[in-house]
This record gives sequence, C-alpha cells and structure tokens, in this order.
Amino acid sequence: MSDAAAAAPGADRLWSVDEHLADILRTVRPLEPIELQLLDAQGCVLVEDVTVPAALPPFDNSSMDGYAVRAADVRDASEKFPTVLTVVGDVAAGGDGALVAVGPGQAARIMTGAPLPPGAEAVVPVEWTDGGLGGGPATTMSAGGIAGGASGEGAGLGAVRVHRPVTAGAHVRARGSDVAAGDLALAAGTVLGPAQLGLLAAIGRATVTVRPRPRVVVLSTGSELVPPGGELAPGRIHDSNSYLLAACARDAGALAYRVGAVEDDAATLRATLEDQIVRADAIVTSGGVSVGAYDVVKAALTGLSGDEGRVEFRRLAMQPGKPQGFGRLGPGRTPLFALPGNPVSAYVSFELFVRPAVRAMMGLEPPERPVIRAECTEPVGPSPRGRRQYLRGRYADGRVTSVGGAGSHLVGALARADALIVVPEDVTSVPAGAEVDVILLD
Amino acid sequence: MSDAAAAAPGADRLWSVDEHLADILRTVRPLEPIELQLLDAQGCVLVEDVTVPAALPPFDNSSMDGYAVRAADVRDASEKFPTVLTVVGDVAAGGDGALVAVGPGQAARIMTGAPLPPGAEAVVPVEWTDGGLGGGPATTMSAGGIAGGASGEGAGLGAVRVHRPVTAGAHVRARGSDVAAGDLALAAGTVLGPAQLGLLAAIGRATVTVRPRPRVVVLSTGSELVPPGGELAPGRIHDSNSYLLAACARDAGALAYRVGAVEDDAATLRATLEDQIVRADAIVTSGGVSVGAYDVVKAALTGLSGDEGRVEFRRLAMQPGKPQGFGRLGPGRTPLFALPGNPVSAYVSFELFVRPAVRAMMGLEPPERPVIRAECTEPVGPSPRGRRQYLRGRYADGRVTSVGGAGSHLVGALARADALIVVPEDVTSVPAGAEVDVILLD
Repeated sequence: MSDAAAAAPGADRLWSVDEHLADILRTVRPLEPIELQLLDAQGCVLVEDVTVPAALPPFDNSSMDGYAVRAADVRDASEKFPTVLTVVGDVAAGGDGALVAVGPGQAARIMTGAPLPPGAEAVVPVEWTDGGLGGGPATTMSAGGIAGGASGEGAGLGAVRVHRPVTAGAHVRARGSDVAAGDLALAAGTVLGPAQLGLLAAIGRATVTVRPRPRVVVLSTGSELVPPGGELAPGRIHDSNSYLLAACARDAGALAYRVGAVEDDAATLRATLEDQIVRADAIVTSGGVSVGAYDVVKAALTGLSGDEGRVEFRRLAMQPGKPQGFGRLGPGRTPLFALPGNPVSAYVSFELFVRPAVRAMMGLEPPERPVIRAECTEPVGPSPRGRRQYLRGRYADGRVTSVGGAGSHLVGALARADALIVVPEDVTSVPAGAEVDVILLD
Repeated sequence: MSDAAAAAPGADRLWSVDEHLADILRTVRPLEPIELQLLDAQGCVLVEDVTVPAALPPFDNSSMDGYAVRAADVRDASEKFPTVLTVVGDVAAGGDGALVAVGPGQAARIMTGAPLPPGAEAVVPVEWTDGGLGGGPATTMSAGGIAGGASGEGAGLGAVRVHRPVTAGAHVRARGSDVAAGDLALAAGTVLGPAQLGLLAAIGRATVTVRPRPRVVVLSTGSELVPPGGELAPGRIHDSNSYLLAACARDAGALAYRVGAVEDDAATLRATLEDQIVRADAIVTSGGVSVGAYDVVKAALTGLSGDEGRVEFRRLAMQPGKPQGFGRLGPGRTPLFALPGNPVSAYVSFELFVRPAVRAMMGLEPPERPVIRAECTEPVGPSPRGRRQYLRGRYADGRVTSVGGAGSHLVGALARADALIVVPEDVTSVPAGAEVDVILLD
C-alpha cells in the first residue's frame, strides 16, 4: 500500500485493489452442485470423482474391417501362397448377438467394432485378403450380409484367400484396453470439455454433477439512459453498460440476464432488485455509487439491516474504478457488485472483481486472468501516485501500446483494446521500452 | 507429399491432410449476414463498417460530482482563502433539460454525467469545496435536490466555498471527445466482444449485421450404439461421438443440434438427413465411412446426383482418421462431413477439418488453430511412414508428452490430452528431446 490513507481504518479509508478482491473472494462461495445432462455441463467443473462402471470396450472387438481368424491357420499365408479359409458367417457391429464360432480352417467376415467371434484370435484386414472374391487384394467389402442377414451361420458362404499372417490379438481391441471397471475416469475438479463429455458418454453416464453457471443479473442505473435504438432527448445518452456487462458476464462463463436501465429513484431500484433477485446468483449494477446527490445505488443500498443484507461502498486506490460497492443482498445473501457508471470504469471493475467472482462460483481455478510482462512501445502516463492505474492497450509479440489514454468515458478506445496495462501505485510514469504488467483480454 | 500413392490420380489415391483441408475451405462459404440484436451477435464477425451517427458524448458533461463554475471566478481560490460562489441550481444527469445558467460569481451543483450548464466552463470536484455546508472539505454531497427538485433556478440556494482553482475544461468531457460523428466506430471484420458491443450500444445501435453462428447437425451411425444411461446388451456400446462432436461444434462457435445415433440402414439414414437438413448449415456424421460391408454413410451417400448433391469418400494419408467423407448435400448444397467412427479419429478429424470450416462459415480468421513447437519429453512412435500422425499429448512450458499412444479407441487418454502432437509423413519415430509441431486444444 503506497498511500498513507489506504492504511487508515474506517469506512472512509482507501482500499487497495488486492484488498477489495480478497474481500470478494472470501465472500463468494462456489455454487451448490447440480446434476446436468452432459451437454448442459459443457464448460462446468465436475464435483465428483467419476469411476468407470464397466470395462471399455466392453468386449474384444475388431479395429478393422476384415476377417476374424485363428492365428495358427494363417501363420504361413503370403501373397504368393495365400491361405484359403472357409467363410462361416458375417459379424457386424450391433448384430443380433448370435455369434458364429470360428473353427480351424474357418474365418468370419467382421466389421470394425464388431465383437470377435468365439474361436477367433485376430483379425486380418480386408486389404490383406481377396475379399472372398477370388481375385487380388481387395480394397473394400461387398455390401450387406453374405447370406442376406447381418449375422449368418453355416457352410457354403464361400472362401477367402488370406495373403499375410497375423499374430493373436492383431487388430483386436481387447476388452478393457481403453479403461477398466473401477478406474478413475475423471477426477473432481475437471473442467468438462468435448473430450471429457465424450468419455462420460462412452462409459454410459447420461448426467453428471457439476457446479452450474452462475445466473448474473445486470442492470444499469441513470435517469439519463435511453436504450440503443431510441431517440436521444437533450441531456440523454444511450445505455451501453447493461450490454457491455452482460456480454462480460457471459464471457466469464455466467448466464447473463440483462435488465435495462433503471432511473435514479431508490424505490424503483429497490423494487427492481426485489423482482430480479429470485433468479440471480449474483447482481451487477452500474452507476450511482459515487459521492453525488443522486447516487441511487448508494442511496438505496446503504444501511441495510437484518435480512436485507449488507452492501459496503468503498473508495479504491485505483483508476479508473475508484468508487465500488460490494456486499450481499437479501435473505439469500446474493452477492451484489455495484460498479461505477462510466463504461470504461465499469468494464475494468468487472474484469478485476466480478469475473474472478463468477469463476470462483463455478469452481474454476485460478479465478483471475493471468498477468504477463510486456515492453511499452511508448511512454505511459501520467498516472496518479497512490493509485493503481489500468490503461487500455493493444498487445502484440511481447509489446504493448496504450490506446485512448486515461479517460474513463472512452468506449471508442476500449473497443480497440485487447489488454489492460497495469501501472503500480508508486509509479507515476513509465518510459518507452520499460516493462509493465499486462492483463490480456480475450 | 512423401508417399508415392498420394500423388496418384483417381478416387483411390491417398489425399494429404493439407489437400483435404484445402478442398473443404475452397468449398464452404461464409454464411449470409443477418441482422441480430446486440447480445445475440456476441462472438460473431461484423460485416459492415459501422460509423458513428452522432458525437459521443453528445454534449459537454461533468466527469465529477461537484460545482459547475466560470474559471475566472475561482482563479484565486485556495484552502486559506476560498472563493465563495452563490449556488443557483442543481444539475443531475437525466434531469428535465431546463438548465440553470451560471453567471459571474455563481455556481451550479452538478453530478457526474450531467450536461454542463450555459455559462459554466469547468467543474470543481466536491472534494475541493465545502459542499455548500460552510465547513471544511466535503467528501460527499447532500442527497436529493437542493430546493426539492432535480433542477432548480433562482437565488437563495446557498453558497459554496471553493478551495482550489480550475482551468476552463477541467473535469468536463467535451462533446465528441470519445467519438465524433462520421468516425469509423468498428470496421467490417471485427469480432464482437463485450467492448465492441458496448460501443455499438453507446452510439445507439440496437442491432448489427453479422455472419451468424452455423447450425451444425451432429449424428452418430451404428446399430451397436446405445444412448448413455441405457443398458448395454451384448455387443453394444454407448454412443459417445454425438456428444463429443456436438461439444466440439459448440466449442468451435457453432450452434450444435445433436441427433442421436442412427442405425446402420441406408434408408433410415437418408430419411434422418432429409429431416435434419432444413435446420443445418452443416452436417457432421460419424461412423460408416470405411471399407466394411455395413458402412452405411458411404452406402447412403455414394453416387448422389443432381439435386441430391455430391459426397466423396477418400483415404487420407493420416493416422488416425484415414477414411473421410466430404461433400455437399441436397439442393441447398449443405456441407457434410462424414467422419470415421472411432471416437479419437472422429475428434481429430473434427479438429482438423470441421472446426476450420465452422470458423470459415463465421468469417473468423484464421480458420485453423495455431501450431507451436514443443520439445518431446519422451520418445514418440512408431509412426507409419507416408502418413501424418496426430498423437494426443499433454503440453506444459514448451514441452509435450504423448498420452495413450496411437490407439484410436482410447477415449480415456483423449480426456487427459490438451494437445495434438504432429508427426510428419516422412518421420517414423521422434527421439526424446526433439522438437515437434503441437496443436494446443483449449
């Protein structure tokens, strides 16, 4: 803490960025796990160790289209002196389960994934045979069942010439060779991406217990706000924060519910929050948190008691984003983030404080974005002493350039940024060529 | 091309990975743009240059809570000798627009974002005044309107002591200082993230014209497939590919529609495709593309003509993923990807061929995932000569380790991988410590 005021106790002291974030991460809790259908759990964190209930594959099966044989029968097979075997049947994946047995001198036509029939020890790929057609090496099998069925039995199905030997187990996927019953398939804490969901499906799991995505209600405050698309009367501006922050919330992994702009009236705001809180795991407001006479969020949420919850309004040693409110609202103690109203302040505040909270609620580690080092292409500053400054920048190949300067209303520049440049509390300017901490925004 | 066969013409030749991908990217087209609500366009590519219709901010406004003043009046203000100004009114953001004028010796209380009243040139932050309370420096403003209204006028509203001078323009955001009318707000080709959506809202745009997310229909084929959660009869396995590939499609940016598994019957498959194609921008099947007698996708989609479209089945010089089908189906020429049925083959095929197609349909550049170099912690191989091998691996800090080996049925290992190790066509083994190409999966 570089500012003397920051160490002072009481409501009026300056909080550091790290203190405020630590308070938030101490307060928010991972959401209660729920059981979801596999595809609804994509991107979520598993809370149970999932063990394999039964071997995968569940039976020895062919990894090729070809002929199931006894290894000894084809030991001497060659291109010049092919071994001729009697084809006794046809085994397709998903056939009726009545498997032909393969005896000495016999073979069964077998398809990829089909169970290895009794007696057979290996599969000869169709390309190593004449395909039962009596000619040279086959490139494909004739379509459909040999004897008009998916699985036939008996003599008279013809013969196949085998051109190469196979050893026992060749082109066979052994039962349990992927995962065995009782194996740990996925450990608690795993993030479920496509491959993990594929594994869960493969071992027969239709549902899975995960931490759900938080439902984040986003609202703007300000009597001057008009929805985009509407006409602007004098003194009015368009509401951009509710769109910006709803998009940020989704980007962080949440399900966002955008409530429009609420006018600067404490009763209206309170009624809106009461309506919305039932569907919220967290609430994000913007505007109305500073020292002005119409700072409605501060007015409506200061001095709550009992089941109303408790929200604190603080000054942070940072720029932008000095005024911040944080607390828990209502009997369910729903986390509430009251961000400043300037769009750039709101954006930076979301990235620094709400995004980590959303990730912590999902059980994702680490909650914060990674910080990298980069060289400044140009001088950066001035930056206020005693405040940590977050400037918008563009990053490429280890170097970063500030865009738009320090103005917290510059949404044009924000839209060109892909990084935040961090200027520490005790630094007031950064020369060109110096290294700085950079947070990459994706 | 390292394999002589790969250069041979005709349907039976081996295609290289690069040839197959080039054919796909030549064939698929970016989707027709549509107009979407802002939040529905998140993650999509803008197809229009968006210009700023009117200056932002639309009027000079205060960046602080404080007092709007004439600069000359407070030129000599100091802590010791404060300047006393008559407060003539109150200006809140979103007030009724009837602005009090600030004359010599006068000030108007003003809130962040409120329009600068006529006559005023600068804003003195409330912390640099006594807040009109006649005491020391203020930390906040008294709530609500001074004279019971959001915007008052006239004498008798009290006085404020100003402790510091301000220059003209101080704490004022000038009209157009963010973006000016006619400026290019966002160029065609911009990917719309939170900041870009915030800017669009700020300049009043409620909708935006973008390339939509492709709707990708995913289905598995195989009579042996049982949905996860169901009992497995002998010879049956669970359908995992439809989950795996639907999740991959969403990961790539698409809207995925998972159709379950279709049995190995050409008429059923054709009927399912006919039903599904109306909602598909692309179709992904898995299984039934090899040389077997029951390879239903190949059977159902080979030899189409006229309005039926055209699908080609190829052998690729790769492992896993040798058999691949690709073409366009139906009168709308919907791209269809017929992937092999082994889960690992299907996954690798999706990553290499379908994901780039999805991104190309969205207009995202580049379509392919980046390739990095990494050092092998252990020997890798054997890898078949003449085929490009994609092994599953785990990557950390510039080093990669193979997991699970070459088996294309190993979904257990796939679920532990976060990278694909690329072994080139002319390499059959890679010693420990050697560098390889690696594709990071996120």
